Amino acid sequence: MTVPHAPSERTRLKRYHWLAAYDRATIDAIIDAALVCHVGYVHEGTPIVTPTCHWRLDDYIYWHGSSASRMLRNQATGVPVCVSITHLDGVAFSRAAFDHNILYRSVMAFGKTELVEGAEKEAALAAFVNRLAPGLWDYARPPTEQEWKASKVIRMKLDEVSAKVAAGLPEEDEADMALDLWAGHVPVRMVTGDPVPDPKLREGIEMPDFVRDFRI
Amino acid sequence: MTVPHAPSERTRLKRYHWLAAYDRATIDAIIDAALVCHVGYVHEGTPIVTPTCHWRLDDYIYWHGSSASRMLRNQATGVPVCVSITHLDGVAFSRAAFDHNILYRSVMAFGKTELVEGAEKEAALAAFVNRLAPGLWDYARPPTEQEWKASKVIRMKLDEVSAKVAAGLPEEDEADMALDLWAGHVPVRMVTGDPVPDPKLREGIEMPDFVRDFRI
Repeated sequence: MTVPHAPSERTRLKRYHWLAAYDRATIDAIIDAALVCHVGYVHEGTPIVTPTCHWRLDDYIYWHGSSASRMLRNQATGVPVCVSITHLDGVAFSRAAFDHNILYRSVMAFGKTELVEGAEKEAALAAFVNRLAPGLWDYARPPTEQEWKASKVIRMKLDEVSAKVAAGLPEEDEADMALDLWAGHVPVRMVTGDPVPDPKLREGIEMPDFVRDFRI
Repeated sequence: MTVPHAPSERTRLKRYHWLAAYDRATIDAIIDAALVCHVGYVHEGTPIVTPTCHWRLDDYIYWHGSSASRMLRNQATGVPVCVSITHLDGVAFSRAAFDHNILYRSVMAFGKTELVEGAEKEAALAAFVNRLAPGLWDYARPPTEQEWKASKVIRMKLDEVSAKVAAGLPEEDEADMALDLWAGHVPVRMVTGDPVPDPKLREGIEMPDFVRDFRI
C-alpha cells in the first residue's frame, strides 16, 4: 500500500504522537470499527461526498444502496473514488492557542469502483447484515427476489490506503511548557443506549440477544 | 437553498420518518454539533476526501490548516468542494433483512472555496478556538506572528445545502409487521470522558472550567 498523504502534511503531523499506522491490521481495525464512511466521487467535474454504511471483506471495502440511486448509478464500475473513515477520540487542550487539536483515527482509501453481482452480491449483503449484528441475517425475514434486484453493491479494492492516528497530546515548545497553563485532553467515545422496541411491536416477542448485546 | 440529492434517493427515503430537514435552523444545528467534517475536492481528476475540523460563522463554513498543506494549497480559491457532515444516532433493527438501517443526521453542502486573510482570518481562528471551548482563546498563549503566518483558513458559503435526518424506524409492510420478529432501535451517542491532564503538567495548575465542563 502506498501513502497518498502529502509530504508537507506528514511533516506537520510529526509534532504529534503518531502511531506508525500504515500497517494493515491498524487500517482494517479503523475500517471495521466504523459503520459509516464518506465516499467521494466526481460527477460532471463536481466533487460529491456521500455518507454511507460500509463493510469490509478481505481486501475490499463495500457499500450498497438502491438500484435506483443516482449515486450508485454514477459510481457503477471503474469510477475513481476516495473512501474516508474517521473516528473522533478526543479533544487535546494545549498551552498555546494554535496547538489545540483533536485526537482521532482515520483511513483514506483511493481506488476504482467495481459493481458486485450475482452470488457475490448476495454473499456480500448477507455479510453486511451480519456485521450490523451477528446472527441478524438468519433471524430476519429473507429478501424477496424484488428486494435483491432493488439492491446494488459496489466495492473497491484496498490497495492505496493510509491511516492517521493522533493518540496523544501535541508536543509543545519548552517555553510553552513552562507557562502557568493547563494542558491535557478530554476523551470522546461512542456509546450505545438501551434498545428501544418499535411501538408497533406485537406482544410476546422477545428481544434477540444480538440486539441486547449490540455495541458500537 | 437548493437540494442536490437525487429525486430517486429522496423517493426511497420517504419510507422513513424524515424530518423536513431543509430549514436553516436544522442545517445549522447539524453543522454546529460536529467537530469534524469531510471535505471533498478534485485534484487532477481524482476525488480526495479529507476529514478536518470545521466551524460556522453566519452563512459560511470554515476549515483551516497549515500554510504548507498540499490540500489547502489545492483548495485555495474558487475550487469546487463538497462538505459532508454526519452524526450517527443509532441502528434500526427491522423485521426484514433489507429494512435495517442507521439513524443519522447529515448535511451536504456544495460550493466554491474562498481564502480568508488578514483581520478576517484572525477573527475566524479566534472563533474556532472558542468554539472548541468557550473562553479558550483568552486563556491560551496567543499565537506568534509566525504561527499566524503558518495558518491558512478556507471558507465556503452555505447556499447549496441540504440535510437528511433519519430519526425513526423504517416503515415496514403489513405482512412483515405480522411476523414473530423483534423490531426497534439501539440509540448511539458520543460522550465525553473525564479530562486527562498532560503527564508533563506542572504542579499547582488548576483545570479550567471550560475543560471540566467540556461536552461534545
